[in-house]
Amino acid sequence: MDKIGICGVGLIGASWAIGFANAGFKVFVYDCHKESFITFKETSKKLIQDIRIINPAIDEAKINSNIKLDCTVQEICEDTILVQESVLEDLEIKKRVFEQLDKFASKNTIIASSSSYLLISKISERVKGKHRCINAHPALPPHIVPFVEVAGGIDTDPNIIKQAVSIYKMAKYAAITVNKETEGFVLNRLQGALLNEAVRLHEGGFASMEDIDIALKHALGIRWAFLGPFEIMDLNAPEGIKDSFTRYKKGIQNLAREQNSVPGYSEEYLNKLEIDQRKRLPYDVRNERVEKRNKMIALIRKLKLELGEDI
Amino acid sequence: MDKIGICGVGLIGASWAIGFANAGFKVFVYDCHKESFITFKETSKKLIQDIRIINPAIDEAKINSNIKLDCTVQEICEDTILVQESVLEDLEIKKRVFEQLDKFASKNTIIASSSSYLLISKISERVKGKHRCINAHPALPPHIVPFVEVAGGIDTDPNIIKQAVSIYKMAKYAAITVNKETEGFVLNRLQGALLNEAVRLHEGGFASMEDIDIALKHALGIRWAFLGPFEIMDLNAPEGIKDSFTRYKKGIQNLAREQNSVPGYSEEYLNKLEIDQRKRLPYDVRNERVEKRNKMIALIRKLKLELGEDI
Repeated sequence: MDKIGICGVGLIGASWAIGFANAGFKVFVYDCHKESFITFKETSKKLIQDIRIINPAIDEAKINSNIKLDCTVQEICEDTILVQESVLEDLEIKKRVFEQLDKFASKNTIIASSSSYLLISKISERVKGKHRCINAHPALPPHIVPFVEVAGGIDTDPNIIKQAVSIYKMAKYAAITVNKETEGFVLNRLQGALLNEAVRLHEGGFASMEDIDIALKHALGIRWAFLGPFEIMDLNAPEGIKDSFTRYKKGIQNLAREQNSVPGYSEEYLNKLEIDQRKRLPYDVRNERVEKRNKMIALIRKLKLELGEDI
Repeated sequence: MDKIGICGVGLIGASWAIGFANAGFKVFVYDCHKESFITFKETSKKLIQDIRIINPAIDEAKINSNIKLDCTVQEICEDTILVQESVLEDLEIKKRVFEQLDKFASKNTIIASSSSYLLISKISERVKGKHRCINAHPALPPHIVPFVEVAGGIDTDPNIIKQAVSIYKMAKYAAITVNKETEGFVLNRLQGALLNEAVRLHEGGFASMEDIDIALKHALGIRWAFLGPFEIMDLNAPEGIKDSFTRYKKGIQNLAREQNSVPGYSEEYLNKLEIDQRKRLPYDVRNERVEKRNKMIALIRKLKLELGEDI
């Protein structure tokens, strides 16, 4: 099976390593901090437990045998089809790492950054092989939400993007293509639109945090767990998506006209959010909630898989 | 048990009738079209089937015995704690209906409109008892997504809003309060923000319909099925919600600055959407998809209930 390089093995890198290894790829892992490999062994056990909820047949021994830890930069770059970089979200560090990866990588190796906001045109600024550099941004938490959005920069070869999408799909990721470089890609642009509006509603005194959360999780989100915005509109009126938009477009446009202020996120406002949120969820039970979040996500994915609604 | 009046028994009204009857209320139903009651008997069977997925113990005979069909306007208004109006989404019709309801309703009866965009200040313009009139907007499909957002108008008594929320909660609805009258309330404002951004991304050539749908249903939506926007931000950084917003606010604000155009939804664009969507889902299998949507929603709610994450 093909060889994948992993550069940086924090939570995101560890998740990539397990994702690729689980799909049968040979995974070679580099990290400049040796202690990361000790942490990895602990982390990977937990991640595999979460994945086991979705797929009880997961083969832990096989996954581990597919992962080679403590490699050199050279080893993760030579003869690999793709190197996935997941180091600190710092432009200068990423620039240096990409120069290294490009120097050692074989001619046909794709070099991908997990960065969520730093665009590949910037990250690859000092790289010779700009044509093979991409953003490949995962979703959180990446081990149980195997989504990746692939975006090229101004110098990326369109064929590289196609190849990368096909590699991620082989590794069982829901891989989408971002056709033009844009801050936030698709995922964070959608998320940001919703989040800014939630804050406008809250800061403007229209509804409480609790009630806005309820509107998402007990109404909108249940559909959004298995239908996209276009699919939903298509089912919302008898004749289909055009019928639906024709009926509701005036209202939707009116909202767009109003939803254009930029929330300030002042220190004072964020302090208020923190105080109110800690009343809802005290800090000492917050970690339980993170674990339950992962369990819930895994169970919803399992349900979707059983019903043929997942990938 | 308390008496509820239902005015108009289309899909929304039927869903309200079953929701209240299932919670043990005595439900009195009026509709100016006699044939609606024949349709209701068919519809209600299907709705109950969907609800049974969530709660197999549902008692169909008891629900039916709690519903009295073919009542007069007077009967649905006298001694009822709340009358729920779900007639056609037409301002003039609703104004006339509200005049009638206010004329017959007992002193303490709350009069609620299911309207999604017509605000209660307008609907109740010609009504004497404006203080007891509210919007109580459900989510789609209302029989398996028992959410309602309660909004008053300029003349609504704040105590009426509190009473209404408590009645809906007794009937097992996730009831939220909209503190100030605003077009789209909370649900459609959040939905509209996401939908407009999805269309900006698609129309701007950043991603395909298919890929935008994937980003929602295979990444964002899985979390949104059981966590609201504030709850999610709280879990996204080690120190909590303030930590999270502090880390990401620059990026989120940048998005708000860009997400302010008003999509045109031109005839040409909507035709393109329809053609592309029909390639993804031919019209003759679209109804199956609607049925599967209801099943999926019911199964996710069942899962949430089992895990103590639903109401």
